[in-house]
Amino acid sequence: MPYEYETDGAAIYLQSFATIRAEADLDQFAPDEEQVAVRMIHAAGLVGLEQNCLFSPGFVQAARAALEAGAPILCDARMVSEGITRPRLPANNDVICTLHNDGVRELAADMQNTRSAAALELWRPHLQGAVVAIGNAPTALFHLLNMLEDPDCPRPAAIIGCPVGFVGAVESKDALWADQPVPCCIVQGRLGGSAITVAAVNAIASRKE
Amino acid sequence: MPYEYETDGAAIYLQSFATIRAEADLDQFAPDEEQVAVRMIHAAGLVGLEQNCLFSPGFVQAARAALEAGAPILCDARMVSEGITRPRLPANNDVICTLHNDGVRELAADMQNTRSAAALELWRPHLQGAVVAIGNAPTALFHLLNMLEDPDCPRPAAIIGCPVGFVGAVESKDALWADQPVPCCIVQGRLGGSAITVAAVNAIASRKE
Repeated sequence: MPYEYETDGAAIYLQSFATIRAEADLDQFAPDEEQVAVRMIHAAGLVGLEQNCLFSPGFVQAARAALEAGAPILCDARMVSEGITRPRLPANNDVICTLHNDGVRELAADMQNTRSAAALELWRPHLQGAVVAIGNAPTALFHLLNMLEDPDCPRPAAIIGCPVGFVGAVESKDALWADQPVPCCIVQGRLGGSAITVAAVNAIASRKE
Repeated sequence: MPYEYETDGAAIYLQSFATIRAEADLDQFAPDEEQVAVRMIHAAGLVGLEQNCLFSPGFVQAARAALEAGAPILCDARMVSEGITRPRLPANNDVICTLHNDGVRELAADMQNTRSAAALELWRPHLQGAVVAIGNAPTALFHLLNMLEDPDCPRPAAIIGCPVGFVGAVESKDALWADQPVPCCIVQGRLGGSAITVAAVNAIASRKE
């Protein structure tokens, strides 16, 4: 006998988000933040993630306004750039990942850093007013913070800082949250990753659920 | 003052995997399975995930032998196909995601199913002996199980079944685990996703850590 299951994508989203809103503790969030947090929980399959989701004041508005004005989205990994749902973007925004660009490997060797960090040097022409989405590499987030210590470095409009893992993820996100060089959101702790980061971008890009 | 942090990618991996092995309860796994579970925990940033990682007997060996023999990897989402580290693949294996192929949207409408499920119909010419990596859509996993109820349907060598979320993820993975039409692994429960799925493929593809 074939399995029977829900096959209507819209119904699946509706039911998923209703389950999350029934189970998660979302009282801490403003309405715009709540939509972002719900989508992040959805991507992770993890009620409770909301306890680690921190949004700086005005973050969602700043990031959304930037996207509506046509800002590019700068991603540290192809899993992030590939996951962003293009039809949700309000201005056919460019989605840029420079990780595999020519010269990044050599630049990383010169910098004695990871390719993920070196790739951010290629962001500079796009960085002013951009939305940054870091969902993989702590070294990328650390390097961005160091770049932004230079007052002459272009400033992004907002930073989604959700690298994942066991070395540098906690520390780089804590550093972003302490510095807040621009409006930002983080997932505190080891959790994070490309799917959660993509979910934040997709939620900011459109209020449609 | 610029932030100081570990910038050596190899050292980051070593330290991450050592932390996971110190903290996680990996006694249940055979050595080949342990390497896969460690990488899945790494991708999720979540010690404890190992409690949900189930491998059927011979799964790692079957999937690895298939890759070494040149089998393609069939992925349900671009975040999965993009995340697989090509230099780890033993036979320059094809990595195939048909989700955005021409005709999938129309086929989904005809099938009254999601695009993720419909895309699997385009797997048929590649399915015999392939490694299947489902890291996003429960409907894809359910549809695969229904396809495999037909004895004339080509059989993959192994199935990584890790869809994530709140509608159908638990049920589709439980169904795979109950059926075991071919060697398989799952992450039981709501957790799963593209990063965990990619980690499993990358660990199977090469024992190198």
